[in-house]
Amino acid sequence: MPAAADPVRLKDLAAELGCDVEGDGEFLVLGVAGLETASGSELSFARDGLVDRLAATGAGALIVSHGVDVGGRPVIRSSNPQLDFARAMRRLVPGSSLPAGISDGAHVSPDAEVDASAAVAPGAVVGDGCRVGPRTTIHGNATLYAGVEVGADCVIHSGVVLREGTSLGDRVLLQPGVVIGGDGFGYVHAEDGRLEKVPQVGRVVLEDDVEVGANSTVDRATLGETRIRRGAKIDNLVQVAHNCDVGEDVVIIAQSGLGGSTLVGRRAMIMAQAGSAGHLRIGERAFVGARAGLHRDVSDGARVWGTPQLEEHRWHRAVAALARLPGALRRLRAVERKLGLRPSRRRDEGGERE
Amino acid sequence: MPAAADPVRLKDLAAELGCDVEGDGEFLVLGVAGLETASGSELSFARDGLVDRLAATGAGALIVSHGVDVGGRPVIRSSNPQLDFARAMRRLVPGSSLPAGISDGAHVSPDAEVDASAAVAPGAVVGDGCRVGPRTTIHGNATLYAGVEVGADCVIHSGVVLREGTSLGDRVLLQPGVVIGGDGFGYVHAEDGRLEKVPQVGRVVLEDDVEVGANSTVDRATLGETRIRRGAKIDNLVQVAHNCDVGEDVVIIAQSGLGGSTLVGRRAMIMAQAGSAGHLRIGERAFVGARAGLHRDVSDGARVWGTPQLEEHRWHRAVAALARLPGALRRLRAVERKLGLRPSRRRDEGGERE
Amino acid sequence: MPAAADPVRLKDLAAELGCDVEGDGEFLVLGVAGLETASGSELSFARDGLVDRLAATGAGALIVSHGVDVGGRPVIRSSNPQLDFARAMRRLVPGSSLPAGISDGAHVSPDAEVDASAAVAPGAVVGDGCRVGPRTTIHGNATLYAGVEVGADCVIHSGVVLREGTSLGDRVLLQPGVVIGGDGFGYVHAEDGRLEKVPQVGRVVLEDDVEVGANSTVDRATLGETRIRRGAKIDNLVQVAHNCDVGEDVVIIAQSGLGGSTLVGRRAMIMAQAGSAGHLRIGERAFVGARAGLHRDVSDGARVWGTPQLEEHRWHRAVAALARLPGALRRLRAVERKLGLRPSRRRDEGGERE
Repeated sequence: MPAAADPVRLKDLAAELGCDVEGDGEFLVLGVAGLETASGSELSFARDGLVDRLAATGAGALIVSHGVDVGGRPVIRSSNPQLDFARAMRRLVPGSSLPAGISDGAHVSPDAEVDASAAVAPGAVVGDGCRVGPRTTIHGNATLYAGVEVGADCVIHSGVVLREGTSLGDRVLLQPGVVIGGDGFGYVHAEDGRLEKVPQVGRVVLEDDVEVGANSTVDRATLGETRIRRGAKIDNLVQVAHNCDVGEDVVIIAQSGLGGSTLVGRRAMIMAQAGSAGHLRIGERAFVGARAGLHRDVSDGARVWGTPQLEEHRWHRAVAALARLPGALRRLRAVERKLGLRPSRRRDEGGERE
Repeated sequence: MPAAADPVRLKDLAAELGCDVEGDGEFLVLGVAGLETASGSELSFARDGLVDRLAATGAGALIVSHGVDVGGRPVIRSSNPQLDFARAMRRLVPGSSLPAGISDGAHVSPDAEVDASAAVAPGAVVGDGCRVGPRTTIHGNATLYAGVEVGADCVIHSGVVLREGTSLGDRVLLQPGVVIGGDGFGYVHAEDGRLEKVPQVGRVVLEDDVEVGANSTVDRATLGETRIRRGAKIDNLVQVAHNCDVGEDVVIIAQSGLGGSTLVGRRAMIMAQAGSAGHLRIGERAFVGARAGLHRDVSDGARVWGTPQLEEHRWHRAVAALARLPGALRRLRAVERKLGLRPSRRRDEGGERE
Repeated sequence: MPAAADPVRLKDLAAELGCDVEGDGEFLVLGVAGLETASGSELSFARDGLVDRLAATGAGALIVSHGVDVGGRPVIRSSNPQLDFARAMRRLVPGSSLPAGISDGAHVSPDAEVDASAAVAPGAVVGDGCRVGPRTTIHGNATLYAGVEVGADCVIHSGVVLREGTSLGDRVLLQPGVVIGGDGFGYVHAEDGRLEKVPQVGRVVLEDDVEVGANSTVDRATLGETRIRRGAKIDNLVQVAHNCDVGEDVVIIAQSGLGGSTLVGRRAMIMAQAGSAGHLRIGERAFVGARAGLHRDVSDGARVWGTPQLEEHRWHRAVAALARLPGALRRLRAVERKLGLRPSRRRDEGGERE
């Protein structure tokens, strides 16, 4: 459905992808779409498990694996159709970058260094001492406090707030409403028992290729750094507390939260609505199931679920057993009666509340 | 407590509501308030279950059911006092609309079409090709990317971000900080094992009368649409992932999240802090209890609770049984000792960790 | 690592803190840092439990308890090193206040009263009838609707939205993206079964010393007030629904949610990702464990965990028992077989699903 910004011949697209084309290589790709809705001028794709849906599609051209029957349509053959279709989409559909230049309606400190190829949209604020790299886009009503550094080819969407001293690498993508560098949550009890704020004077570093979803929050460190490492991907409404260190290529799904000083090893996956207490280590390539609540470390490669956490196989058995528990309690009472451990049904009723 | 923008006689208000008035119809309603705090110039109401509180109220006038004793006060008789009081509030208290016109401090693209009766406040951004309908208000520092369409009588509060191509029907109400059309969370593994972004080129459609609470997020589709259908109401800090389809009059309470491609049938209710895995169907008029974690479909009209989900009656029994489980384990050990299946208390300690 | 805005001699800092100094009181403190990263010109500290780390630190000066060996370094002796270090940080590191005055790029209603010592940054909106107190800072792209009152020494960060009529005391600190006064979530069924909005015409009051974390939301009351009392501290992504009353010095950790009309007693603590159904009372000094889901009141001083909630000691026993449940079910089957209550292993398989 999205129209290509710049239509391309199928053979040229295949060449860019490093793939072979079969059939009419001159086919002009005007857009991309899913199998169900694609029209005759559009490119679609099918994963290997879904090739039975190809018969019904109206797509004019396809990206599929070698050997899959496409009924004579022009086709790009790929060893990874999903990956190559993603790349085709990126080639065909315009991204969220804006034309270079600082808009009249932007508020850019004269003291900030904004690369000439970067774009700053109306309503955006760029504070004193900020540095914004080449081809980066800062959308309307985003706010960069003083001393923020943003690398090349970043996209900072509207409503994003980068507090003072935040540092972004290259190709960082922040969805709308993301807050980076808000104060960590730290208080001490004063002499009168009231809570007194511990100033949060550290900062946040997002390395290259980090992406953060809408309205997620990453707090600045109390002292030192909160760091999200290269390639980590964070979904919407996620909370990352002060002094966390999130490893390379980590994935954190929506509405999860990391307590303060959590270490997450590279390539770990944290599914939706999970949470960790503070000062834990989640190992490399560990898997934390949706809605898990962690109260102790997770080993490298381990898979855990539940609140409090159990290893995956134990958790599956525990939840299956829980559903059978009411019946088991009845059976236990029957056993006790048979053994004379529970003399009458009358007293049984009172006794079963242990 | 809130003063009426435009005071009204009780008899006129009753006529607008299609209700009868008893007592002094000339009573001038200067404001609305709860029973506990209402003063002699204010209107209040009581649901049928709370009429015993009428004796103590200082309210000058009331909306109550037929036959309820109001001690001689002027009263509007209603078959649904809660509904008619809501309508009276709407009549009496000013809403969040602003006077028509584009503020000097707004950033409206010359290429956007904003109806002359719409209002755009300072700091708001309206991008290229946007269309804004009659009597719609866009509050300060809201941001509409290019190609956004907004119907009539909408209220877009401050800090809202509508990404490119988002479409809103009529009477859509978006609380502050809502993000519509952020990228869906989609990645594929590249050849080197790193995550590569799947461009999210679909859009979001919010139909008529949809309302979304503060800081909630609705992601754009990968391809095609994420759609929230007529009359659906979404509370604060809710996450709706890419390609979801939320049915008419659905209710989703705060901090819940829907995984990608979730289908929610009309009039379903999802209580607070619940979540669904992706690609599930939640049936029409289904009820998902607070903090439920769904991993499989919910039938039409079904009621489920828990993580992982159980039908309501099974869940109630399971949680009641869980609280009794420690005692049951002790009783099981006693049974085993009696049967000679557990020879001594000493070995018991080691053995009970199965 | 953060440089002091205004370097200070150790003896002068000690005097401000009301502490004694040992060693070179002329030591010039250029910054503050954690023990691991501090350099020779920086001040660090150690809690009593961590004094073994002092040997390795490069810090030039320290705050520690009386009698702790600091190897001859200049030192401030404190009966509460954590508290005094927090105060030293506040003294040394610049906060988030801005220089007084209204920026050219701010949108301040001519009808608003902004104290001459307050700061309003570019892109901030201050609506009709607002009052902003002395030394308060309103950062870029924050939005104050009409009739908002803000006391003295507040910091309103970027992206914050204060809806109409919101009232803030003194020293209130709102992190970026906080929404105060969004509509409460209230609907009634109309005659045709559709949901009709109950106008939310109350307001929100945040008393002195309240702090709210990034992207948290506090809804306005339906009628009357939602109130957060003096000194309460709320973390990121927390939801406080309409008509809640949060007591003095309450702590609410990230991603928790309070249903409508929840009363939270003073000094209660609500840990991360917890939730309460509406119309509950959480007692004074109560403790609600992480991820607890409350469905009934919590007594003063009580400690509860789990969904649904259990008292702490019962919850610990229940979750320990749950992990052992699968083994217990096997043992129960063995008992039943021994007693002839479960005649054969074959029928056992079918029967165990109760």
